[in-house]
Amino acid sequence: MPLPRWKTEKKFTPRRSDRFAFGIWCVMNRGRDPFGEETRPRMDALDAVRGLAKKGCASFEFHDDDLVSPAASLKEREKRVRDLKRVMAESGIAATMATCNLTFHKCFKDGAFTSNDARVRAYALQKTMRLIDLAAQVGAEIIVFWGGREGVEVEASKSPQEALRRYREAINFLSHYVRQNRYEPMRFAIEPKPNEPRGDLFLPTAGHVLGFIPTCDHPDMLGVNPEIEHCRMQGLNACHDVAQCLEAGKLFDIHLGAQKPLRFDQDMRFGAEDLKETFFIVKLLEDAAWPGTRTFDAHPYRTEDEDGVWDFVDGCLRAYLILKEKVARWNADPAIRALREEIACRDPVLEAACAAFSPANAQALLARHFDPDALAAHRLRYEVLDQLTQEVLLGVR
Amino acid sequence: MPLPRWKTEKKFTPRRSDRFAFGIWCVMNRGRDPFGEETRPRMDALDAVRGLAKKGCASFEFHDDDLVSPAASLKEREKRVRDLKRVMAESGIAATMATCNLTFHKCFKDGAFTSNDARVRAYALQKTMRLIDLAAQVGAEIIVFWGGREGVEVEASKSPQEALRRYREAINFLSHYVRQNRYEPMRFAIEPKPNEPRGDLFLPTAGHVLGFIPTCDHPDMLGVNPEIEHCRMQGLNACHDVAQCLEAGKLFDIHLGAQKPLRFDQDMRFGAEDLKETFFIVKLLEDAAWPGTRTFDAHPYRTEDEDGVWDFVDGCLRAYLILKEKVARWNADPAIRALREEIACRDPVLEAACAAFSPANAQALLARHFDPDALAAHRLRYEVLDQLTQEVLLGVR
Amino acid sequence: MPLPRWKTEKKFTPRRSDRFAFGIWCVMNRGRDPFGEETRPRMDALDAVRGLAKKGCASFEFHDDDLVSPAASLKEREKRVRDLKRVMAESGIAATMATCNLTFHKCFKDGAFTSNDARVRAYALQKTMRLIDLAAQVGAEIIVFWGGREGVEVEASKSPQEALRRYREAINFLSHYVRQNRYEPMRFAIEPKPNEPRGDLFLPTAGHVLGFIPTCDHPDMLGVNPEIEHCRMQGLNACHDVAQCLEAGKLFDIHLGAQKPLRFDQDMRFGAEDLKETFFIVKLLEDAAWPGTRTFDAHPYRTEDEDGVWDFVDGCLRAYLILKEKVARWNADPAIRALREEIACRDPVLEAACAAFSPANAQALLARHFDPDALAAHRLRYEVLDQLTQEVLLGVR
Amino acid sequence: MPLPRWKTEKKFTPRRSDRFAFGIWCVMNRGRDPFGEETRPRMDALDAVRGLAKKGCASFEFHDDDLVSPAASLKEREKRVRDLKRVMAESGIAATMATCNLTFHKCFKDGAFTSNDARVRAYALQKTMRLIDLAAQVGAEIIVFWGGREGVEVEASKSPQEALRRYREAINFLSHYVRQNRYEPMRFAIEPKPNEPRGDLFLPTAGHVLGFIPTCDHPDMLGVNPEIEHCRMQGLNACHDVAQCLEAGKLFDIHLGAQKPLRFDQDMRFGAEDLKETFFIVKLLEDAAWPGTRTFDAHPYRTEDEDGVWDFVDGCLRAYLILKEKVARWNADPAIRALREEIACRDPVLEAACAAFSPANAQALLARHFDPDALAAHRLRYEVLDQLTQEVLLGVR
Repeated sequence: MPLPRWKTEKKFTPRRSDRFAFGIWCVMNRGRDPFGEETRPRMDALDAVRGLAKKGCASFEFHDDDLVSPAASLKEREKRVRDLKRVMAESGIAATMATCNLTFHKCFKDGAFTSNDARVRAYALQKTMRLIDLAAQVGAEIIVFWGGREGVEVEASKSPQEALRRYREAINFLSHYVRQNRYEPMRFAIEPKPNEPRGDLFLPTAGHVLGFIPTCDHPDMLGVNPEIEHCRMQGLNACHDVAQCLEAGKLFDIHLGAQKPLRFDQDMRFGAEDLKETFFIVKLLEDAAWPGTRTFDAHPYRTEDEDGVWDFVDGCLRAYLILKEKVARWNADPAIRALREEIACRDPVLEAACAAFSPANAQALLARHFDPDALAAHRLRYEVLDQLTQEVLLGVR
Repeated sequence: MPLPRWKTEKKFTPRRSDRFAFGIWCVMNRGRDPFGEETRPRMDALDAVRGLAKKGCASFEFHDDDLVSPAASLKEREKRVRDLKRVMAESGIAATMATCNLTFHKCFKDGAFTSNDARVRAYALQKTMRLIDLAAQVGAEIIVFWGGREGVEVEASKSPQEALRRYREAINFLSHYVRQNRYEPMRFAIEPKPNEPRGDLFLPTAGHVLGFIPTCDHPDMLGVNPEIEHCRMQGLNACHDVAQCLEAGKLFDIHLGAQKPLRFDQDMRFGAEDLKETFFIVKLLEDAAWPGTRTFDAHPYRTEDEDGVWDFVDGCLRAYLILKEKVARWNADPAIRALREEIACRDPVLEAACAAFSPANAQALLARHFDPDALAAHRLRYEVLDQLTQEVLLGVR
Repeated sequence: MPLPRWKTEKKFTPRRSDRFAFGIWCVMNRGRDPFGEETRPRMDALDAVRGLAKKGCASFEFHDDDLVSPAASLKEREKRVRDLKRVMAESGIAATMATCNLTFHKCFKDGAFTSNDARVRAYALQKTMRLIDLAAQVGAEIIVFWGGREGVEVEASKSPQEALRRYREAINFLSHYVRQNRYEPMRFAIEPKPNEPRGDLFLPTAGHVLGFIPTCDHPDMLGVNPEIEHCRMQGLNACHDVAQCLEAGKLFDIHLGAQKPLRFDQDMRFGAEDLKETFFIVKLLEDAAWPGTRTFDAHPYRTEDEDGVWDFVDGCLRAYLILKEKVARWNADPAIRALREEIACRDPVLEAACAAFSPANAQALLARHFDPDALAAHRLRYEVLDQLTQEVLLGVR
Repeated sequence: MPLPRWKTEKKFTPRRSDRFAFGIWCVMNRGRDPFGEETRPRMDALDAVRGLAKKGCASFEFHDDDLVSPAASLKEREKRVRDLKRVMAESGIAATMATCNLTFHKCFKDGAFTSNDARVRAYALQKTMRLIDLAAQVGAEIIVFWGGREGVEVEASKSPQEALRRYREAINFLSHYVRQNRYEPMRFAIEPKPNEPRGDLFLPTAGHVLGFIPTCDHPDMLGVNPEIEHCRMQGLNACHDVAQCLEAGKLFDIHLGAQKPLRFDQDMRFGAEDLKETFFIVKLLEDAAWPGTRTFDAHPYRTEDEDGVWDFVDGCLRAYLILKEKVARWNADPAIRALREEIACRDPVLEAACAAFSPANAQALLARHFDPDALAAHRLRYEVLDQLTQEVLLGVR
């Protein structure tokens, strides 16, 4: 078949300065699912790193177990780290985030930090301290906590308050560990998810993480790693979730991908679903000149073979770049600018009075006469605004 | 502000031959919602019809109560019908569908055809017979049944089997009425909805309607009116729903609009959500050269004023025409064609053996040696195929 | 710890006459999930059958691959069937349903009957014919078709109409095969599921199956196997789904379990979620004296060990028996009976006029004067009715 | 019909000491919905208050507009407040919460505090200051903020960061206003909701509110008012939401009711859905001896007449009392206690090491040998635990 045109096109070619990253587990994914066996052969972590570098990624993210078996000896482990650092140097790719796998082994079947078994909780701390050391060795400055087993199917099995206390205890312990080891600027980002693999997970949304952070010992070290798919699994507006993290200064990392709302975790190629919401997420990050990596956490369809893994990578990167160009176009569109100006009904006197409380301001507001019916008459041309947005996306303006 | 460019553009201008229609209730919608009062003034049905004609619609759909109050005298009613026919003639617009309002009045609070009150069931039949007569007068050949109150909040209040029997009894009665009055080719289309305003509605999906039809007296007269928003309220793939209706020869009407999945009934402008699924719905209708009207059933945002109602109409029509152009482009794209060819792994001998049962075919299939691992190796480049589809949609190829 | 009281209680002890069944795959389930390894050791199919018999089940259901590897020689296969029949005879348990595993092997990654690969479609037919032979050997009279891979993630990859045609072709072929082999009264039951493991599955709900059946060659041989969890994954009212199947004479089998709505497939212990809806499902089956088996298709929590598998079985069986007793109590409750009598507002004259169309009946209905406001005044004490239902369930009346 | 037994029963009779409350808007609800007119006549606010007192409620909650029209003169307003205080004194009922209606009038169609119109934002502040004064007059110490219009359908219409800033500005202004007027211990509780009536609302979940609070001027004055139905509209575990608020010391108020997940806002009678989750919410509140009011925010089915409103009230109160009794029974059940003891695998040495970081503790944990496979073997009898819970609920143990 003819090579699809986009494979040779220059326009949407990723560069290091785009700060793209992937979790290496995404390309190492073998297509196993609850009803089926693996469809792709094993890929070594170092090949994953090399492949991503070749595709133009500036960095990658990894689990401890992606790189080295938890059963490996210290010597094997060190060898593996040396090899990884060599590949990184050769390929010009950095490690920006590391995370501890506290989900796969059956000992974590009822949770890690919130397990009902004190020994499991202790082992989870040990495994994470080791991961933190490993992250420091390879220069990863973000540690992500995704509590994939921190939940319940049986409400009676755990007190949710006790579970939150245990979660906090672990985060506190580990943040002290980072500081003791002078690993700063290493920081932690908690990644929320509402459910799957557990019936219900604790800290199900970005909001719940934002609410949890101030109750910990080192809130400044703690932020959020929202994953678009996890927001959408809960039916939330993913753009608003990312925005609330950003506005609070807590967007430490982000996981980009696609998902049909309120279904099993699909982890589809970035851009594959809901172009409008995805566009506004790119717009948020780009308009804010957010300094973090644009990290994709998704995986190829189970139907893909080994080549398809890299088609999947290409697709994620291209979708981001295309949408980034659309953001520039949208921002510059004169009709859109005019509409947004019209919508924003300004009143400097009132705005000043509302901006900050003072007895005088309160008095002035209370004394003011408002005619609600007249206020209701202000024109809000949102149908046109949304249609223009869709037409920018569709490339017809 | 500068007039948005698209208002003056010629390219996506609707023509009568596009067979566009709207429910007149869509433009008459006043923005009332469960938590707020009306935001727009009353619009007369005849103005709605005139306005739609001016926008290029070939036809419209209506409820009995949209046109004339149920309390009106026979004389008032007839005057109203004459006025409508005059407006239709003057504007060059047809009436393609009529439907009986069995939801608004409080007497229908527990259902119409499935009410527990025999008198309500009888009154619903009477009101619908009159609507059918009215439809015949104005030439509408499709009668839609949307059972907005045919459901329960309290499971104990109705036997679901009894409710289905009552539903069928009503549909049977009315289909006989049409035949007795020689109203053919008048046909019925049942419009499914899963919930809202009732906790659970009977015949919640297009599938359930397709399953109900063969149990009625005149299945040939009965089809489905799938509404995209209702499919998406249930989280179903709306494209597959429409396709199953089409494949069964039962797509009698369609209601187009947009909706975020698994939320309250949002009835947003066609094209406002999920461009990919919407594209494939347009593709289904256009590839099949489906002869029905492209009817929009949605309403302007509550924030719009009276002008915004027509911006909403423009947006629906433009979105359809833009997507229709994308369909042509997608169908013609050589890379997409080549990929689809590659995907379809043909084997004429096996296909013939499978196509129709015979003892010999069965024997041949049973005797054949298959190597499942080898079969699994066939390449399925779906990541590329989906990415190319998105790029057609985004206008970058 | 003290043995929980219910282990020794006699009251809710299953008997063969209760016609309980399990899929043997439920107890053979090893707890693997998308993010974790197996937590329980392998259980042999024959031990599963023996264990279920000991628990009081009258029958079991199975996949071909549960019993014998698809790679097994004919001789091994026959030995395995002999062993199974011996265990069945010894244990006094029957096989009521068999189903072909068309999901696990990677060759089915893009579907079996609807695969884009003609060879896969042919292999799926072969594998199913062999399963049908096996079912006949062990006396299973229901063949279930669960199309776990019959779907898409990429809309462009399959025409949904073509997919339905292929599905039908396969069902037709196999129904002819049954008739040719004189396997009657063997029948087919199609089991719908909306999604997972595929992004979207064809025939997503019981309704869609009911709509598909009349388009096939032998509709009388075809019915539905609704699975409660699959209905609830789609957010549908599972009770209404079962009722529509029953009312259409198409409830050929049923899969009982529990599920939080609109999440990944949880397959929890029957009775673990939504007691009210579950109660009404039991009520449907028992009030209708439905002759099929009460089959559980669910699995133990991943946190359970080998003993917990049988606790899970006990829980399913007890929950059904407890709810069955509640049904009798509800049916006999005088306040509930009186309320239901009050709700049903009868009018024999009107009911007769509505029951069957005649020109005279239509004329009488059209001539009748109805006062809608007066009709609205009929009292519907649904708050009390639902509260009484909940109190029966809670055991406080 | 015979009077249902529970009407005369003494056991579950509410007493003032149970601290039950209702929003008066719940009983004043007239049954209007998006597709239908009112089904019940107007009830005066003072009659609502009297009726709730008679039913045994200790207090009530109200909107400014429930009591007095926003168009009322100051004199009318004062008369109304005097009348209310007289009714409260006569009936022995208190006002515990007040909230400003910023949703109904069309001037709020695009939000109040987050409106794009500076005048609307100012008017919303004025209206809320007046409501705060009114609350102080009648002794209500909680002010609830439910931002029913603070959202978007059109992502382009508001920057979500700007919207959060405006929301904060308003909350800050009003918290200063309370302090200036020395209204303490008056406190604010923000009530999250994910969507409806807007497409997406800001601060969609309890988590998002918890994350927003620390960014405001007076976080100590700010808490959450989780509404069970709103949690369930988003498909969240409502029990976990309430628990996270409790654990953070931020459960300032609660709204109890019932809801099928991921549908329109149903606001059904407390106890009408999901008995298990509802039980665990009651358990949370009772085990924690939470000092707030048990407030119901729901409304009668639209099918109810005026009497049915009070049946609805009775049902909510009874359901709570029945579940409270079940909590005591569950807590005392010896088999459940034993199981929970078995589940909690303790290890005092490890627990001490994990509880608080020290270099020595970290060292000890790092040095410790763990055998993950052995850890996985700990028995977790969750199937039995959940089944026992269900049996307590069902009243069969």
